[in-house]
Amino acid sequence: MQLLEERILRDGKVYPGQVLKVSGFLNHLIDENLLDEVGKEISARFSEDGVTKILTVEASGIAIACAAAHYLHAPVLFAKKSKTSNVSDNCYKAEVKSYTHGNVNTVLVDKEFLSSSDRVLIVDDFLAHGAAVHGLISLIEQAGACLVGCAIAIEKGFQGGGDALRKSGVRVESLAIVDSMSDDSLTFRK
Amino acid sequence: MQLLEERILRDGKVYPGQVLKVSGFLNHLIDENLLDEVGKEISARFSEDGVTKILTVEASGIAIACAAAHYLHAPVLFAKKSKTSNVSDNCYKAEVKSYTHGNVNTVLVDKEFLSSSDRVLIVDDFLAHGAAVHGLISLIEQAGACLVGCAIAIEKGFQGGGDALRKSGVRVESLAIVDSMSDDSLTFRK
Repeated sequence: MQLLEERILRDGKVYPGQVLKVSGFLNHLIDENLLDEVGKEISARFSEDGVTKILTVEASGIAIACAAAHYLHAPVLFAKKSKTSNVSDNCYKAEVKSYTHGNVNTVLVDKEFLSSSDRVLIVDDFLAHGAAVHGLISLIEQAGACLVGCAIAIEKGFQGGGDALRKSGVRVESLAIVDSMSDDSLTFRK
Repeated sequence: MQLLEERILRDGKVYPGQVLKVSGFLNHLIDENLLDEVGKEISARFSEDGVTKILTVEASGIAIACAAAHYLHAPVLFAKKSKTSNVSDNCYKAEVKSYTHGNVNTVLVDKEFLSSSDRVLIVDDFLAHGAAVHGLISLIEQAGACLVGCAIAIEKGFQGGGDALRKSGVRVESLAIVDSMSDDSLTFRK
C-alpha cells in the first residue's frame, strides 16, 4: 500500500534492536485519514470472505481493527492482555511471548463472543516473529472457529513470522512489508 | 442517545460492586454499527469547537476515540498505561487510581504529540469517579494545551465524577448517564 509505505519512509524511525517506531501516525498518535485508508484497503482484500468477526489484541491493534470493521461491516473482538494465566474459566486463553519486552502475557477472550460459526479475520498493527498472531490463532482454534486470514499494517519481513505463517497455509495480507532496515535505509518487499 | 440507552438496557449486565458490564457491544466485543453512531453523535456535539486532537487512554477508549475522529477529522492520541512511574523524560505523565482494580497506573503521552497549540477533546468509554479524566486533563495542562471538553459513552452519574467536572467548569457530554442501577432496574438521567 503506497500511502503507508510513503508515510513509513517519511515519519517512521529506526531504533537499535530492529525497532521501527511509527508512533507519530499509527500506534500512539493516529492519523485518522491514514487509518481510514488502511481500513478501506483491508476491507478490499477480504470483502469476499464472509468475515463475521475481526479479532485483534489490545492496545494498538484496536484502531486498525475498528477501521477495517467500518468497511467490512463486522464486529471487532479485542483480546485482553493479562499478566497472569490465572483467569476465569469463561475465557479462551493463550500465552504470547513479547520479543520487544522480553515477557510473557496471557491473551484472552470471553468464550461467549467467539464460536464455531465465526469466520475470523485477525488484524494487527505489526507482525514480526508472529507471536501475537499465533496466540490469536490459538484462541480461534479453541473456539472451533474458522480463520479467514490475517491483515497486518506493517510486517517486518526479515523477522520471518509472516512467511512462516504463509508456509503453514495461513493467508497473510500485509499492507507494507519491510524486508530490511537500518539507520539510513528501509527496503519494502515488491 | 437513545440507541445507546436501549442497547445498555438490552445487553448491559449489572454486577455486584456497581459494575455495569457492556463487554458484549462496547469494550470487548464492539458492535461496529453502534460504534459508528457513537462517533457521529460525539462529532455532532463538538463539530464547532475546532478540535485538533482527540485524547483517550488505552485500551477501551481507543475504539470510541477513532470513531469520533472519523467524523471530526482530527487525529487520535491514546495515552499509554504503565505500572511504573519511572518513564522517559520525553513524556507527560499523570497517576490514575483505578477504583475497579484498586491499583495506580501512570498514564503517559509523548511530549512530541501534544502542544500548546492543541485544542483537545477527551474521549472515553466510561466516566465514574473521574480518575482517568483527571489524569488526562493533567496531561493537557502539562502541555499547555486547551481542553475543549469530554465526550463519554457511559457516565455512571451516581458516582459523581461527571458532575464534579461540570461544577469545575469542564464541558462533559455523556451519551448515556446512568443515575441508578440494581440487578433488576437501571435509570437514565433525562
